[in-house]
Amino acid sequence: MALEKLSSNKAFEGELIKYKFKSTVLGGLDTQFNVFLPANASKGKVPVLFYLSGLTCTEDNAAQKGNFLGPAAKEGIAIVFPDTSPRGAGIEGETDSWDFGVGAGFYVDATNPKYAKHYNMLTHVTAELPKVIQEAGLPIDFARQSIFGHSMGGHGALTIYLNSLRSGAKQYRSCSAFAPISNPTNCPWGQKAFSGYLQGGVEEAKEQYDATELISKLGGKPAHILVDYGTGDNFYKAGQLLPENFLKAARDAGYDEVQVRVRSQEGYDHSYYFMSTFGADHIHFHANFLKA
Amino acid sequence: MALEKLSSNKAFEGELIKYKFKSTVLGGLDTQFNVFLPANASKGKVPVLFYLSGLTCTEDNAAQKGNFLGPAAKEGIAIVFPDTSPRGAGIEGETDSWDFGVGAGFYVDATNPKYAKHYNMLTHVTAELPKVIQEAGLPIDFARQSIFGHSMGGHGALTIYLNSLRSGAKQYRSCSAFAPISNPTNCPWGQKAFSGYLQGGVEEAKEQYDATELISKLGGKPAHILVDYGTGDNFYKAGQLLPENFLKAARDAGYDEVQVRVRSQEGYDHSYYFMSTFGADHIHFHANFLKA
Repeated sequence: MALEKLSSNKAFEGELIKYKFKSTVLGGLDTQFNVFLPANASKGKVPVLFYLSGLTCTEDNAAQKGNFLGPAAKEGIAIVFPDTSPRGAGIEGETDSWDFGVGAGFYVDATNPKYAKHYNMLTHVTAELPKVIQEAGLPIDFARQSIFGHSMGGHGALTIYLNSLRSGAKQYRSCSAFAPISNPTNCPWGQKAFSGYLQGGVEEAKEQYDATELISKLGGKPAHILVDYGTGDNFYKAGQLLPENFLKAARDAGYDEVQVRVRSQEGYDHSYYFMSTFGADHIHFHANFLKA
Repeated sequence: MALEKLSSNKAFEGELIKYKFKSTVLGGLDTQFNVFLPANASKGKVPVLFYLSGLTCTEDNAAQKGNFLGPAAKEGIAIVFPDTSPRGAGIEGETDSWDFGVGAGFYVDATNPKYAKHYNMLTHVTAELPKVIQEAGLPIDFARQSIFGHSMGGHGALTIYLNSLRSGAKQYRSCSAFAPISNPTNCPWGQKAFSGYLQGGVEEAKEQYDATELISKLGGKPAHILVDYGTGDNFYKAGQLLPENFLKAARDAGYDEVQVRVRSQEGYDHSYYFMSTFGADHIHFHANFLKA
């Protein structure tokens, strides 16, 4: 699983590097990711944020448009930007929809045999990427990880974080999300994805892949979560995001707004303009825990 | 020349709006531009920066990736993002090259009859856009304009600014550029563009469209110019930018580094990662003059 360096751009005194490697968990396909290393990484290992992107995106969109690199450079934090699905699996129909298949891996490990060989973005993000990055000797301290994401990637960040708390693994110190799909078993995007990727469909997803379901099952274990969504977001209005469901479940489970903060941002939409506005906020939120 | 609003995104408490209108100076073609209005524009007119983009870009690239909106919001400055050429003129060959024709208007008024009806980005940017924006009643104070740009747009910003000083019009208070084509009559990009757009070719361009030529002819009139370029920029290495020529001409003409500052940025390339790194710097530079 050797990393091949595809490109490098200096940014904010640090470096954004694009790598390619043959992914075992994605069924032997080539996959790409970007990693931003702040300048201080040349002097020792730095903490890391994993950023999970939304539907149709690649490893590039948020690196270019998220307004994350400047704040991360200031805080001395690395960011890893994975892709959003395997590419080139050649599974029938995988490129027919923009919200399923290629560009839409939903951060699950597929159990439906049709997808199980390739669509394993959960293990790719949580285990394989940290492993290959560590083996390549990049100056990242994986004892200090946090995770965030947008939309489908917000769903990924929340569920990965909550599962890691629930299991006691505590792989991540904090989690944040922009306009996350917060209760996917109750919205069309999630229902379509889970029906496709999981043998047990939506019912199977409730166990592991729904942030609103998961927060109820944590037994009050300490959590550090920040969520922003915009009231002008058409996907929010269409009932794809359902942040209120997540918020209610969190409060019902006893989490106060210090532990689980969900902010409604007046007039903002689903775009990178929204994310770039609050990007620095999110980086600073994570820095509190990553640098503690 | 009524403006049609195509979209609007809230960003940094302000608003990024995309407009379309039928442009007289571009031969009656539809053209688009983005304008960022900071939140304080709701309380009164704000100063404005014109941003001129580089080869192949549209009005969108820098709005999304330049890291300009946050700093402009903080300073209370509007930014206008024009397109880089007319689109849809239907002139033979205009889409054959990425560095000439569509996406590559070079901010000139064409004198070659083949292009003269449509390729008039100079007048479009300096006169037509301010006029239609003013007529539409947008809260912008055109007595406080400055101008900046990238690569081909850096050439545009410098030449437009220097010509405005030279003529005494002083339409702009300050000028800055990222990796500008600084001496286009001496580089392949400029020679190709001028040979195409101008009846008198490169010789005609020396009079009006070459920053290095122009700065020598100012007679020492006060100037406020900031230029950044990266030493890792492949176009710089290939001799397309020639910032040293501009710098030498400025010093020969008596400008010190307070009036004409040219910064060589170690290791940075030609990309938006470079621009986003120094975007806030440029906005703050202009704010000194726009808010004086």
